[in-house]
Amino acid sequence: MPGETMETIFDMETVALDDEDSALLILDQTQLPGRREILRLKDQKSIWDAIYLLQVRGAPAIGVSAAFGIYLAAKEINETDFDAFYTKFEAARDYLDSARPTAVNLSWALRRMDGVVRANKEKPIEEIKKLLLREANEIKAEDIRVCRAIGENGLALLKPGMGLLTHCNAGQLATAKYGTATAPMYLGQERGYGFHVFCDETRPLLQGARLTAFELTQAGIDTTLICDNMAPSVMKQGWVDAVFVGCDRVAENGDTANKIGTSYVALAAKRFKIPFYVCAPTSTIDMSCKTGGDIHIELRSAEEVTEMWYEKRMAPEGVKVYNPAFDVTDAEFITAIITEHGVAYPPYDASLKEIFERKAKAEK
Amino acid sequence: MPGETMETIFDMETVALDDEDSALLILDQTQLPGRREILRLKDQKSIWDAIYLLQVRGAPAIGVSAAFGIYLAAKEINETDFDAFYTKFEAARDYLDSARPTAVNLSWALRRMDGVVRANKEKPIEEIKKLLLREANEIKAEDIRVCRAIGENGLALLKPGMGLLTHCNAGQLATAKYGTATAPMYLGQERGYGFHVFCDETRPLLQGARLTAFELTQAGIDTTLICDNMAPSVMKQGWVDAVFVGCDRVAENGDTANKIGTSYVALAAKRFKIPFYVCAPTSTIDMSCKTGGDIHIELRSAEEVTEMWYEKRMAPEGVKVYNPAFDVTDAEFITAIITEHGVAYPPYDASLKEIFERKAKAEK
Repeated sequence: MPGETMETIFDMETVALDDEDSALLILDQTQLPGRREILRLKDQKSIWDAIYLLQVRGAPAIGVSAAFGIYLAAKEINETDFDAFYTKFEAARDYLDSARPTAVNLSWALRRMDGVVRANKEKPIEEIKKLLLREANEIKAEDIRVCRAIGENGLALLKPGMGLLTHCNAGQLATAKYGTATAPMYLGQERGYGFHVFCDETRPLLQGARLTAFELTQAGIDTTLICDNMAPSVMKQGWVDAVFVGCDRVAENGDTANKIGTSYVALAAKRFKIPFYVCAPTSTIDMSCKTGGDIHIELRSAEEVTEMWYEKRMAPEGVKVYNPAFDVTDAEFITAIITEHGVAYPPYDASLKEIFERKAKAEK
Repeated sequence: MPGETMETIFDMETVALDDEDSALLILDQTQLPGRREILRLKDQKSIWDAIYLLQVRGAPAIGVSAAFGIYLAAKEINETDFDAFYTKFEAARDYLDSARPTAVNLSWALRRMDGVVRANKEKPIEEIKKLLLREANEIKAEDIRVCRAIGENGLALLKPGMGLLTHCNAGQLATAKYGTATAPMYLGQERGYGFHVFCDETRPLLQGARLTAFELTQAGIDTTLICDNMAPSVMKQGWVDAVFVGCDRVAENGDTANKIGTSYVALAAKRFKIPFYVCAPTSTIDMSCKTGGDIHIELRSAEEVTEMWYEKRMAPEGVKVYNPAFDVTDAEFITAIITEHGVAYPPYDASLKEIFERKAKAEK
């Protein structure tokens, strides 16, 4: 991965293992767009930090990182007895799981890795470690397939020349490849659709300005950056035909947690009668979560708001700050939820159940 | 004005003439909250720049600055013949008027100063100059009276302990004193109402974070800063009982141009059934403007969005940017318009007309 130029972003991987499968390589997203730095992470604390500090972010990319991360933790456990091994494995799993509370993919990936361990407890520990590596690689490969399928399903809803708007970064940088909300944009670009994309800058951490605007312009897509509060002005002009956003967790009833401000965009889209699409790998849909009210919203530090990307203070000393990282968009504001197994329309409790039935069939 | 400490903000003036009436003194708002710098402006170019660069901003403060500014221009015109004087006066007036297009107070104040000249064309030029100074001082004194009256009218709609939300800075720093949207907050503070105020940071120029959070915390008001996209999250929690915003121009039908993002807040307020109040000195109400569609929206430079307060670039080179400084909130989203002559409720064409009739009576 090191040594790439700006031109090769599409060959670039957001998350990978190094050639010896001994370190997690992460493109440090806090340094973009100014600098491209690959982090080489070996110990659990630095992997936890990378997730907490958003050096890697985006629900699917967090899931892939956690899978590789727990594999690296397991690799370092020098026990031959299963129970001793599993006690340490569980501790590592719970530690990684605590890095961020809202994105379901973190715990989903760790649960899946945990399942591999428990299903193979009769096997030698060295064998279990190999199976963990295989599972982590499969989680990543699946993510790429899933994003591509979401792209196809999303693109089918669009026409060439349309104006699209997205919030935060549910892009290539948030996944292993293609992104979720950006997947229809990339596939459209490959096929000459000529989309015009508006990116909300997405305060406080500016993932839209720094990441989405970066990866879309790199791909040659016509991209216009706006501040979050400009979305209604752009929509009022008639420049937006559809909104695509990603998600961190979708509840059974369709309520969707995503980056702070997403529910605001949905409100504006409804006002201007613009379809509002949530792009959701089924790994992000949490059928054990009844409604948005059951989703825990992470509150983050005041300095993210009061200091400009950690450099210059922009607010008076001592002012209180409320800094939720996510909000919940009520299902009534969501036109459809686009998954790798098809598009779900309201009422979502029924349509999401159908998606999972389709998924179960496909996996048979 | 120089030599004040942070404690004396309420004695501080946003805009003033120096003791010799020979320079415009402006508290440079682009330096707040970090630094308090008084600009001493003599020539028209630097006054134009101060308005364009938002060193002085807020519709009423711009009006007062323009009044003092055109007085200083007139003072420098060395003509004794009226026509020769007036030709130069007009050129200076049009030049200042071109600094910002959206706020009506700029042209309103200049028209009022122009009226003084034309009504006194028979008098000696030196006499006209004195009358101009008197008029500029009166515009400033009026602004203070008007803001206080808006504060009283707004406060009458509120109860102690309420949560309020405001966008941008329609505060003391936007006026000569009290502010418009903040006037009920300051009067409430004097009377022990114990309001909790949420300030939208207001991208791109962060007037909420830098100015409103600054002046409200200085006044001891319980103030919480949020990013613009967090307003619906705060409202959903039930923390906001009313929204107060200022305005740059109100059309006859009540459509209101104000800082970009205001219409978004109105949308959220409607969704959560929270009253949305526009605080408008009658000088900001433009009955010659039929609807919001007739209001020219200023587009500003891309760098305001791509660079963090002119310091560090946060977006990729070459990305397009759409940066409107204002948006229009449709009248249907506005609960009431609070003026110094009472509160107007929908339908606004009738109620605003009534406000002006009341004003005419009061001025008789």
